[in-house]
Amino acid sequence: MAKDKLIGVDLGGTTIKFAILTAEGEIQQKWSVKTNVLEDGSHIVPDIIDSINHHLDLYQLDKERIIGIGMGTPGTVNRENGTVSGAFNLNWSAENVQNVKSQIEAGTGLPLTIDNDANVAGLGEQWRGAGNNAQDVAFITLGTGVGGGLIANGDLIHGVAGAGGEVGHMIVEPNGYLCTCGNHGCLEQYASATGVVHLAHDFAEQYAGKSQLKALVDNGDEVTSKIVFDLAKDGDFLANEVVNKVAYYLGFASANISNILNPSSVVIGGGVSAAGEFLRNRIEENFKQFAFATVRTSTKVKLAELGNDAGVIGAASLARN
Amino acid sequence: MAKDKLIGVDLGGTTIKFAILTAEGEIQQKWSVKTNVLEDGSHIVPDIIDSINHHLDLYQLDKERIIGIGMGTPGTVNRENGTVSGAFNLNWSAENVQNVKSQIEAGTGLPLTIDNDANVAGLGEQWRGAGNNAQDVAFITLGTGVGGGLIANGDLIHGVAGAGGEVGHMIVEPNGYLCTCGNHGCLEQYASATGVVHLAHDFAEQYAGKSQLKALVDNGDEVTSKIVFDLAKDGDFLANEVVNKVAYYLGFASANISNILNPSSVVIGGGVSAAGEFLRNRIEENFKQFAFATVRTSTKVKLAELGNDAGVIGAASLARN
Repeated sequence: MAKDKLIGVDLGGTTIKFAILTAEGEIQQKWSVKTNVLEDGSHIVPDIIDSINHHLDLYQLDKERIIGIGMGTPGTVNRENGTVSGAFNLNWSAENVQNVKSQIEAGTGLPLTIDNDANVAGLGEQWRGAGNNAQDVAFITLGTGVGGGLIANGDLIHGVAGAGGEVGHMIVEPNGYLCTCGNHGCLEQYASATGVVHLAHDFAEQYAGKSQLKALVDNGDEVTSKIVFDLAKDGDFLANEVVNKVAYYLGFASANISNILNPSSVVIGGGVSAAGEFLRNRIEENFKQFAFATVRTSTKVKLAELGNDAGVIGAASLARN
Repeated sequence: MAKDKLIGVDLGGTTIKFAILTAEGEIQQKWSVKTNVLEDGSHIVPDIIDSINHHLDLYQLDKERIIGIGMGTPGTVNRENGTVSGAFNLNWSAENVQNVKSQIEAGTGLPLTIDNDANVAGLGEQWRGAGNNAQDVAFITLGTGVGGGLIANGDLIHGVAGAGGEVGHMIVEPNGYLCTCGNHGCLEQYASATGVVHLAHDFAEQYAGKSQLKALVDNGDEVTSKIVFDLAKDGDFLANEVVNKVAYYLGFASANISNILNPSSVVIGGGVSAAGEFLRNRIEENFKQFAFATVRTSTKVKLAELGNDAGVIGAASLARN
């Protein structure tokens, strides 16, 4: 029986997303289950196994047809051993090392390949999303933090200790905001959802003019990155200043990534990128200022296209090899 | 007859260096000829062909034993077509496209692979130098300009338009010194030989204390980057301030490269790196400040080890595939 299907698994702190795809990356079936993080996250791997086996039965799909399973996961991934640790939103502590690969392979009878979630989402966008299956693509995901996945010559860059693609920890403002990593001025502190809010608070404090954003901050009302972008779109001056600063840092980082990697595209994804063309356009303006000529004309700044499917598609891509 | 030899060619504006190497990269013979840039550099390719053929005869080395020729060249390289243009120190203008590959292959009967000189030197250091043949190595060369070669997963990163590895155009000081590329604040403007001298002049202007470096600048004497480093080693305060600033920018750039690529090592080469451990140590201090934890402990800052042989060894490496 010809092997012609891939399984992609996107493991997150709230839900586990699954998909069955063709070898070309077309999603044929998808489903999800809630992530059960109780009892040190010990139910997670068995739940993944059960859900895959159950759905293959349900769809009457012979395991002989499955090329393999790919999975994106939070935490620290050892790709060779197939283990994961330090995924705090799964209750997998640094000491609580999960033998994900051996368990899932034993439980399903199928080969598993794993990588970290940002890398996997980057691979998804590169293969089937905004990256147009180009050999060189940079992916930046703007969520609670800032992550990324860098693909050069068609392969993810992992580096010697797996820290490749950690674009959130590029320094964009020496002596800037303190980062959770201990350094100052990491991109993550300016372009994540929390970074946008941090900038909004700082800008509001220093601003004396009229602004709805300033009023919210001064009232102690909750300010989210979505509120900042919505107010900016409505013309609020201060909110626009915040968005301009976020776009400056993202443009600066995108240009410096591109000045050394010259990818076909820098693809911006994640929750904050829901601000869409309004944000992309301003990132691009800054990118063009900091990119040198060859890069300015050959590397494009794009919005991610796959949304929540990037994870399962990228995971399936892992399983292709 | 078993193919067991490589030929490496390092084409420069003053000399063309050649070497015959084993398949493992040991140099067995090396020689060089002066680069004849007269008549639009039209003698260069014929000279390379003659020199290779002559030396293979001289060493009675059967062409059947040659795996291939690799060559590093200045200018804009089209690796697929095997052409070079815009190598101004060779008098090869942007319009004067040289069919290097087809001519050398026809003239020697051997396959040729070409790449730009900084990439090739990076490949040499990665294979047989400070890079220890690791899969992920970043190379920065500090000369008249600043160039680089980035190797990830064992392969050079070229990017979509061949600008991969152009670390000299990373922006390290937004609104900083104007670069020949038109942007402001490129690494090249601070860490090349001319950049060091530029900083020395600016620092001398703003400094009121006693300093031999300041005296040289004030007298209008010629100041070279070597003089700046020598004075710094002798304890001149101002010269040390200049070296600290150079090391700051190199540490910042090395850390940002490493925060996204996490190479085994960042290898510093080129003429300015002759300052040796005196410079490396200060680059490393700054690197450690800007690298995040995983990178700080896993990526090393090293000095290049191959000197002038990096080019021919890296070129030979190109011919291996």
